[in-house]
Amino acid sequence: MLEYVTDAADPRLTDFTRLRDVELRKSLEAERGLFMAEGEKVIRRAVGAGYPIRSLLTTRRWLQPLADVLGDATVYVVSDEIMTATAGFQVHRGALASMARLPLPSTASVMESANRLVVLEDIVDHANVGAVFRCAAALGVGGVILSPRCADPLYRRAVKVSMGAVFSIPYARMDNWYTGLDELRAAGFQTLALTPDQSATPLDEVKLGDRVALLLGAEGDGLSSRWLHEADEPVCIPMSPAAMDAGVDSLNVVAAAAIACHGLMRGRR
Amino acid sequence: MLEYVTDAADPRLTDFTRLRDVELRKSLEAERGLFMAEGEKVIRRAVGAGYPIRSLLTTRRWLQPLADVLGDATVYVVSDEIMTATAGFQVHRGALASMARLPLPSTASVMESANRLVVLEDIVDHANVGAVFRCAAALGVGGVILSPRCADPLYRRAVKVSMGAVFSIPYARMDNWYTGLDELRAAGFQTLALTPDQSATPLDEVKLGDRVALLLGAEGDGLSSRWLHEADEPVCIPMSPAAMDAGVDSLNVVAAAAIACHGLMRGRR
Repeated sequence: MLEYVTDAADPRLTDFTRLRDVELRKSLEAERGLFMAEGEKVIRRAVGAGYPIRSLLTTRRWLQPLADVLGDATVYVVSDEIMTATAGFQVHRGALASMARLPLPSTASVMESANRLVVLEDIVDHANVGAVFRCAAALGVGGVILSPRCADPLYRRAVKVSMGAVFSIPYARMDNWYTGLDELRAAGFQTLALTPDQSATPLDEVKLGDRVALLLGAEGDGLSSRWLHEADEPVCIPMSPAAMDAGVDSLNVVAAAAIACHGLMRGRR
Repeated sequence: MLEYVTDAADPRLTDFTRLRDVELRKSLEAERGLFMAEGEKVIRRAVGAGYPIRSLLTTRRWLQPLADVLGDATVYVVSDEIMTATAGFQVHRGALASMARLPLPSTASVMESANRLVVLEDIVDHANVGAVFRCAAALGVGGVILSPRCADPLYRRAVKVSMGAVFSIPYARMDNWYTGLDELRAAGFQTLALTPDQSATPLDEVKLGDRVALLLGAEGDGLSSRWLHEADEPVCIPMSPAAMDAGVDSLNVVAAAAIACHGLMRGRR
């Protein structure tokens, strides 16, 4: 169903307003149970993963390429100007879909379905969450578990940076950070805590069990001392001593996650 | 020497103008032989690596923390407003240093000094160049060789993303793309071409020689077919077949570079 809208303040466009206002979007998307998919490729992947389209905001130009996935979703057709005024920035490849969220699986079901997991503790940057999902999915990690305070993988920026990988890898969110690792252990997972501490065992030298969960902390602070100490083993990525002397003492969280996910899949490929 | 400047159009501030205007900055910095270092940490690393400070633009607040590295450089002290008007955006941790470039070493001298090299072909995104330098330096790669069209590692954004790693790892730029790999071979380097093509040998299974150069192409296009075919061996990072079916068919260039640099250092740590 096509509806032509000529006013950015039209209440029918509320799903799509002020996409760069992180606080507004968080509450609006939670209340309405929606998330944003941006551009044809990402919208197709979301639909392919089973998320229903609530509605689409687009300009005339982008209507045709998406026609086959729209089903009976309402489509709001606007000018470039209204699009920009609504979203709050110039939307490239001008199609935005408001997608309905689905209930997240339980941590138990994600643990049951995979033998290699990545567990993210309090990574609050949406771009980093998206990039880690992209690495994990591309390298074949079976699932992701999020700590309670981790950023939302379905937030627009995370979806975009992940190139839609957030739709292709199962993930769940823990209810309780404090007892977070107990459930992993009970499910038979060996828990490895990634740390910059060079006295830890290099990840490539760790004997990996049948079921392994790799714990990744936030950029800057790294893992909490609770998780670091509760994990079965701290592991590190070996760094150049010369670089550390020169102050290049860490990898960014995405580079570290890429190397760690690759190491986690050793022997499983 | 302190000079108080109260007008953003003052010609003494020309080194620091319109930092987000990429084309303007490229020509201005090339003509004047300068680059920008932003914030105390990066400025200290540049000075520590031997780059002379031409001049510093700062607000009163950031003068003291940098006092010990300034030598006899001219310091322009301005208000926050003049700082923002000059740079063209709000400068966090308000100190900008105009640093003098030093002559780049020759490719021959970089090849002589290292047994593990990364060679970047036409990576034009400054942030990606900076991130690859950060990975290479942190993981102990000995040097970087750039193709003629690669983005400048001393451009502000590359410096910033690298966290100053561009100062700690030697790099050089090829004169000639067409014959670029000949010199590497003549210097005894085994050349490995990273490709997403999953029929290539996984990097972790390649027998690495004494001297190895890893060739990385740009995001999107990857390596040119010329380099891909001239290299001794194409190598890949194994990806998940399921993810590739779902359209998550690649890692971003930084994640790929991180895994590849880590793999390149196998047996050297």
